Amino acid sequence: MTVIVDALITSHPERRIFEDLRQGNVGCVTVTCGVWDDAGEALDHLGQWRDAVQANADLVALARSRTGIDAVIASGRTAIILGFQNTDQFEGRIRYIELFAELGVRVVQLTYNNQNAIGGSCYEPHDSGLARFGQEVVREMNRVGMLIDLSHVGERTGLEVIAASARPVAVTHANPASRYPHQRNKSDQLLRALAERGGVVGCALYSNITGGPETTLEQWVDMVAWTVGLIGIDHVGFGSDKSVNGTLADLHWMRMGRWTRSVDYGAGSASNPGKTPGFEWFQSMADYPAVIEGLRRKGFSAAEIDKIGHGNWLRVYGEVFGGDE
Amino acid sequence: MTVIVDALITSHPERRIFEDLRQGNVGCVTVTCGVWDDAGEALDHLGQWRDAVQANADLVALARSRTGIDAVIASGRTAIILGFQNTDQFEGRIRYIELFAELGVRVVQLTYNNQNAIGGSCYEPHDSGLARFGQEVVREMNRVGMLIDLSHVGERTGLEVIAASARPVAVTHANPASRYPHQRNKSDQLLRALAERGGVVGCALYSNITGGPETTLEQWVDMVAWTVGLIGIDHVGFGSDKSVNGTLADLHWMRMGRWTRSVDYGAGSASNPGKTPGFEWFQSMADYPAVIEGLRRKGFSAAEIDKIGHGNWLRVYGEVFGGDE
Repeated sequence: MTVIVDALITSHPERRIFEDLRQGNVGCVTVTCGVWDDAGEALDHLGQWRDAVQANADLVALARSRTGIDAVIASGRTAIILGFQNTDQFEGRIRYIELFAELGVRVVQLTYNNQNAIGGSCYEPHDSGLARFGQEVVREMNRVGMLIDLSHVGERTGLEVIAASARPVAVTHANPASRYPHQRNKSDQLLRALAERGGVVGCALYSNITGGPETTLEQWVDMVAWTVGLIGIDHVGFGSDKSVNGTLADLHWMRMGRWTRSVDYGAGSASNPGKTPGFEWFQSMADYPAVIEGLRRKGFSAAEIDKIGHGNWLRVYGEVFGGDE
Repeated sequence: MTVIVDALITSHPERRIFEDLRQGNVGCVTVTCGVWDDAGEALDHLGQWRDAVQANADLVALARSRTGIDAVIASGRTAIILGFQNTDQFEGRIRYIELFAELGVRVVQLTYNNQNAIGGSCYEPHDSGLARFGQEVVREMNRVGMLIDLSHVGERTGLEVIAASARPVAVTHANPASRYPHQRNKSDQLLRALAERGGVVGCALYSNITGGPETTLEQWVDMVAWTVGLIGIDHVGFGSDKSVNGTLADLHWMRMGRWTRSVDYGAGSASNPGKTPGFEWFQSMADYPAVIEGLRRKGFSAAEIDKIGHGNWLRVYGEVFGGDE
């Protein structure tokens, strides 16, 4: 079976997660080392991931370059790429970006669910576009080899980032809004612009933004095929957005953080406030073989499946991360 | 001479500043305890101000309520109100607002020169309006009795804050853009909306936003009269924006902070990059008597001068701060 790159998971570091990754033939995965953290908290989370990877060195290893990823895959293990789903970790300091890059952070989403000094989020009433600090951050992330992630970023900001970035940018975990209308999903215009600059979208396996838990594998694969039709075979990959071991408290943290005393439903809703069961056919990263089989049944060739499965992400990682381990 | 309230100064705490305040008959002043600080740095700056006030208790005393301000004025000293010119100090935590209020912080500007999670600034290419966290912050500042300052805030965000706030809001240090066109100054529409909700604008004595250092006292007083004509005698006061002892390094910190490695000119420009000399007729807060004399020459009555000089600010402070010392 083709090697898988999963461009975004939110599971906590635990041996069972690493076992799932091996079982699913996932050769590389970008993990979420924090959402609402400040710099000090981010260091703690990076430390926790480093320790967990070290303690499970038979299954996984950290990587920060294309060379490094390839070496880990060749060793029969899963390459772990460290990432943030927000930029609160930078604390508004342009110079922290280089420091986090030196600590191995390679994929950073510009905003989580709220506007910040960089730009607007997909949930804000109005999207500011790329703000003054954001222009600095795009330049700096380009320079130090961090992949810019637009998944939760607002439409206007996303388009302006794509135009401003000297390197390809990513939507690591979202779907086309034309197929599944949701604030978290992406317009055809944005996906086309992303692809024109060499970027990749990771089709998500998070049921709240994909028609709900009843969506079938066939429907999901049909969405992948539709996306390939829109932007081409070289710009579509996987980004499951999967949390296997997250608790309800984790979900509340991701949605409410410390910014509100009220209830915020994130990608859910008042009628769907809690953890979602996810698709019956994708309970963990161990289930990727069934997804690949679905692509095959849809008529994708082996070469096309290699691109969706890993080739497109590895190309972008290589173009953006640069350097050696 | 009428007692003065100066709604915003940026001078550092030093005995000579407190002497200026007494010489100018300034009975109450809001000071800037930080711009780009995180919470820990803000505590340091609050501590420095508290120590300086304590060490000069013959001239000044802290106040946090209308009752407290009145008592300090009656004692022949200057009441010091603690304020921030930004909300980075809250670090995105809704619960920090109450804690800073308990430490005496009473006037907080929602944004400095850059967009943040609350809203847009006057220097951003596009103003987001009031963002998700911003809606929470306005409610919380209303609840704990902090005066919302819109001076460096963008137009759209400012209008949305005025509509959202249950208490009067302030522009502590800016001028009407109709008189002195500058990104930092305020539209007639915003000033009218502010006044309709009981707010006050502090006319600024910062030459970069007031036609340059050659502007005469007569021209400045004419602007004050024009502003009174626009929004009424009950909504205009002073907010000098004066730094007497700030260095060039301080100016660079205020403009560039830690968010850029490039040059940002703030309210200045490439042809006017450094510290400005200020008006010859207003070198420090000790020069307020001449300003009052200017208002008198312009034809303002003693009762009107009392309102501009202190009455309007004391009314708003009383309506917003609430409680006793």
